[in-house]
Amino acid sequence: MKRYGMVIKVKPGMADEYIRLHADVWPGVLEAIKKSNIKNYSIYFKDDLLFSYYEYTGNDYDADMKEMAENPIIQEWWDKCVPLLLPFPGVADGDVWCEMDEVFHTD
Amino acid sequence: MKRYGMVIKVKPGMADEYIRLHADVWPGVLEAIKKSNIKNYSIYFKDDLLFSYYEYTGNDYDADMKEMAENPIIQEWWDKCVPLLLPFPGVADGDVWCEMDEVFHTD
Repeated sequence: MKRYGMVIKVKPGMADEYIRLHADVWPGVLEAIKKSNIKNYSIYFKDDLLFSYYEYTGNDYDADMKEMAENPIIQEWWDKCVPLLLPFPGVADGDVWCEMDEVFHTD
Repeated sequence: MKRYGMVIKVKPGMADEYIRLHADVWPGVLEAIKKSNIKNYSIYFKDDLLFSYYEYTGNDYDADMKEMAENPIIQEWWDKCVPLLLPFPGVADGDVWCEMDEVFHTD
């Protein structure tokens, strides 16, 4: 299992819409997350910051992420979410969320 | 079990020292974390941001946090860490890290 911590900002005035969408995530999005071997996935909010934490339990992360990105429901979902977000400068090409470095972990 | 997401900033120039400390956390600190019923605890870093995620499995969070705060090893550890950090404005009295709101979760 590999843990991921990701960060992004929400555009000014867009937090309420982001929170509203995530209070009632579409069933097809939840299914796609599960199918991509992502578990224990949380998103946290403070001021203009969003942080996400999840655990990847598969054995080909890039392939699972590619399959998720090609899912039409996920594309429709991202069409709603991505315009609300302000990616960090220098985020990897094609990515939206920025991967953080794990500096500590204890089970 | 209750999940927590917390955020704080690291002071300019202090990230390396924070990361160095957390690459080799004292055994007494790890013991105190375990004794406080905190599990699956990770800290992530990006730019000047630190994000922590952990799961609390006890049944009196305030009492467990109070006991941890009174532990002399923890106090010595915080004497090293807290001066490196820049708490968010409006953080709860006596707190250092700022609790974020969970806006999404799926198992």
